[in-house]
Amino acid sequence: MAARSGEFDLIARHFAPIAQRDPAALSLLDDAAVFSPPAGHEVVVTTDALVADVHFRTIDTPETIAQKVLRVNLSDLAAMGARPGGVVLTTGYNRDLSEDWISRFAKSFGQDCASYDVSLLGGDTVGTPGPTFFSLTAFGYVPTGRALRRDQARLGDVIAVSGTLGDAALGLSILSGDLTGVGLAMEDFLKDRYWVPRPRLDVAKACLGLETRIAAMDLSDGLAGDCRKICGPSKVGMVFELKDIPLSDAARAVVASDPSRWNQILGGGDDYELLITGAANDIAALGDQVTVIGSVTDQVGEVLVRGLDGKMAELAPGGFDHFK
Amino acid sequence: MAARSGEFDLIARHFAPIAQRDPAALSLLDDAAVFSPPAGHEVVVTTDALVADVHFRTIDTPETIAQKVLRVNLSDLAAMGARPGGVVLTTGYNRDLSEDWISRFAKSFGQDCASYDVSLLGGDTVGTPGPTFFSLTAFGYVPTGRALRRDQARLGDVIAVSGTLGDAALGLSILSGDLTGVGLAMEDFLKDRYWVPRPRLDVAKACLGLETRIAAMDLSDGLAGDCRKICGPSKVGMVFELKDIPLSDAARAVVASDPSRWNQILGGGDDYELLITGAANDIAALGDQVTVIGSVTDQVGEVLVRGLDGKMAELAPGGFDHFK
Repeated sequence: MAARSGEFDLIARHFAPIAQRDPAALSLLDDAAVFSPPAGHEVVVTTDALVADVHFRTIDTPETIAQKVLRVNLSDLAAMGARPGGVVLTTGYNRDLSEDWISRFAKSFGQDCASYDVSLLGGDTVGTPGPTFFSLTAFGYVPTGRALRRDQARLGDVIAVSGTLGDAALGLSILSGDLTGVGLAMEDFLKDRYWVPRPRLDVAKACLGLETRIAAMDLSDGLAGDCRKICGPSKVGMVFELKDIPLSDAARAVVASDPSRWNQILGGGDDYELLITGAANDIAALGDQVTVIGSVTDQVGEVLVRGLDGKMAELAPGGFDHFK
Repeated sequence: MAARSGEFDLIARHFAPIAQRDPAALSLLDDAAVFSPPAGHEVVVTTDALVADVHFRTIDTPETIAQKVLRVNLSDLAAMGARPGGVVLTTGYNRDLSEDWISRFAKSFGQDCASYDVSLLGGDTVGTPGPTFFSLTAFGYVPTGRALRRDQARLGDVIAVSGTLGDAALGLSILSGDLTGVGLAMEDFLKDRYWVPRPRLDVAKACLGLETRIAAMDLSDGLAGDCRKICGPSKVGMVFELKDIPLSDAARAVVASDPSRWNQILGGGDDYELLITGAANDIAALGDQVTVIGSVTDQVGEVLVRGLDGKMAELAPGGFDHFK
């Protein structure tokens, strides 16, 4: 279904050039795009929607919003061990949005696609009287039968995570005025972590390269809640060591002055880091790309965290009240 | 990115059962779904978004809205000659929408997927303070290199169309009170044509079966404007014969009493019929699945229609003023 209004000619002007990169997109001139996975590979598909003032702040720049729209989906591909192939983007623009905004969004989106070697294969553009929304569907490729799954955690596995946790949640707190006095450089770092996810495609590739059993997912809603999405399908429990949770210098400074901020670090969203489990020697082979933060238990669905004082506490989906 | 609110547990309850049908969906429990095209086939992908009170009427039933969300995308697959495989569905529910509405939408969507042998492979559910929206991405399969394109029309081709034109546009006029006195049975027929598209997958399959050059697209915004989407890429013009445009009994009755309604029939949207061009003997082999309505010319971008009086007129994208 094509756009119904002449106003969308400008969309074609801004997005069509991005799509020229891949012949599969048929220059956005056809009803659909055509592609094939490489020999010996399957197609991995994921989709995520972002709504203005629900999933991003309208006052954020169109450049970082475009990066977020793409990268939250690439993070899902990373969680499956897939390398990105192409995307289709549906955009519902609020009718008051300026052409300049759309132009800047499209330019940033195109640059980010190019930097990840992802093709814009097609899309749909509609107007909406409500908040602007983006719905992106991303395709990736994974060797047949080798996709990383959430149901592969086993008793005795170690649990590891990429990057550092909590930065984005703290960054959002800074943006909303709920966290102050962190210092300009650290504030900039944390805000950037909220604005621009870093999908861990390299870590995913390394996991796949191990050619062994690994459970994986990406953290979007906080470790405390998300880890249960492995516990459920794998029928296991988890215990984390608070002292081992990897923190940026900025996050470390924040919790040092206010330990209650641990709840945000464990329960806040937008990390887009990979949570993985596997045999200790397999995880060790990943080197310093990941940090071991706990181990898998046979207490199905039970998620615990050992505090800095050595005491064990339950880790509720929204964080934990050890410091309350 | 998962839903952030407990309110969406109910979505999982309504949609997860639909997704159980295909192992590729991994029961909607993983970050993404995995699938492969059949041997010798490529993946065709298309996406369409529908916004409440832009693309459907909020007061329409959730059952027919669900059918429309799926079928407008299947129509795009038909236009490429692809047979449907799977879909991912993003839903942005207005927060005032009732669970009953969502339940009815999901049930209808599941039934329609089953009737077309389409798998729900995944999706995303978000809340929005604005109008409800749906963004669906559909995958289909087509023999490698055989997708029907828009750039394949040639001088001397005949132009044909599936089904009948204009019914949905007249149906919408009835629903909006702009067309009255058609009679109850005919009104019901026309409204149904607006509510529930019939993607012409059988016609698409027959076109592919010809194993010859065919240009194809689906009509969503009206013949008068949409036909230019073949003229452009194929660098041709078109001339239509008004007397040959296929009409339902209801549409025929409407134009008989008000010839100005021809503008709606040629310029209105939501037909979801296939427009195809090809050599006369190839099109003839499709039998009565399609009706020949014109021919391809070498007057690039020029679209004409010969009226019932034999006089030639330009066919503007919004219709033509022959009867004004």
